[in-house]
Amino acid sequence: MKEVLAIIRMEMISKTKEALLKEGFAALNCRKVMGRGKKKVDFSVIENMVNGTEISSPAVAEAMSEGHRLVPKRLLSLVVADQDVKKVVDIIIETNSKGRPGDGKIFVMPISDVIRIRTGETGEVAI
Amino acid sequence: MKEVLAIIRMEMISKTKEALLKEGFAALNCRKVMGRGKKKVDFSVIENMVNGTEISSPAVAEAMSEGHRLVPKRLLSLVVADQDVKKVVDIIIETNSKGRPGDGKIFVMPISDVIRIRTGETGEVAI
Amino acid sequence: MKEVLAIIRMEMISKTKEALLKEGFAALNCRKVMGRGKKKVDFSVIENMVNGTEISSPAVAEAMSEGHRLVPKRLLSLVVADQDVKKVVDIIIETNSKGRPGDGKIFVMPISDVIRIRTGETGEVAI
Repeated sequence: MKEVLAIIRMEMISKTKEALLKEGFAALNCRKVMGRGKKKVDFSVIENMVNGTEISSPAVAEAMSEGHRLVPKRLLSLVVADQDVKKVVDIIIETNSKGRPGDGKIFVMPISDVIRIRTGETGEVAI
Repeated sequence: MKEVLAIIRMEMISKTKEALLKEGFAALNCRKVMGRGKKKVDFSVIENMVNGTEISSPAVAEAMSEGHRLVPKRLLSLVVADQDVKKVVDIIIETNSKGRPGDGKIFVMPISDVIRIRTGETGEVAI
Repeated sequence: MKEVLAIIRMEMISKTKEALLKEGFAALNCRKVMGRGKKKVDFSVIENMVNGTEISSPAVAEAMSEGHRLVPKRLLSLVVADQDVKKVVDIIIETNSKGRPGDGKIFVMPISDVIRIRTGETGEVAI
């Protein structure tokens, strides 16, 4: 089993969730993160986007006011069987790759065990 | 060493924390997540709960407005020695299992090292 | 490759980010967490700090109102090559160690793979 962690644009979370669900990957969770990649963030671009639709202004305002120069992102987490990792990674890339810096990153992490609290089931059946 | 990550109901965090502390597991952290399991969420049930006590309405409102159809959950994280994993998992199951979908899941992740910033101590002594 | 996760004081995030950037570690993300170490938190100290500058009052108020007795912290996450783990850990310790409880902890986690969504690159080149 592996945890697939994807850091993606805020506004891509719904599309990504739907694309995963369509292929049978329903169980997931999602967290707010502030992130930065290797490239210097061009905030004039982001300020333009605020007037557009890509990033809502309160989130950017928060990023600015905290002085982080970090961009609000969403962190999507799924736990899947080893043989499903490639499929899930491909779905996330297909949905999120726009050929622009900031498209995001995927991290694949080892998992030792999964337990469903309700039943106590462990391993892949509990995913 | 292992990280034990538990995704549990929002309102179960205090009880779980107390149950862990009682058995000597004090060090932990907690994050807000939005999550979904394999089962389709029945939002009429959640709407009823809003009028009850299980989930407070602002959190559900946020979930709705983001259009995620994800349920607000808490992610509890503890790092423990290998020999304590079973004990911690059992405490979390005992406290959170109500036999209902949404009780949550536990993920056990390998940890390579732990370092206490104050002292520079590493390994189990730094847990 | 490893994920270096550091749980540090809220107000240390900017300094830590700058210290890492100076040494060439630009890519990172940051999340809000509520945490507790092994030591009992002395809330009279925190209440004094609210009147000072260390912790802003809304965050503490939130901690109190949720009844968690957990302290708001920041969780910093970087993925680095194996040979950079020690350097990154040392930078984080150097920036955050004040010899006081609450300075924080660092967790080093194994990573199976990293994928850059924009290009599909995998492995260390995608970090």
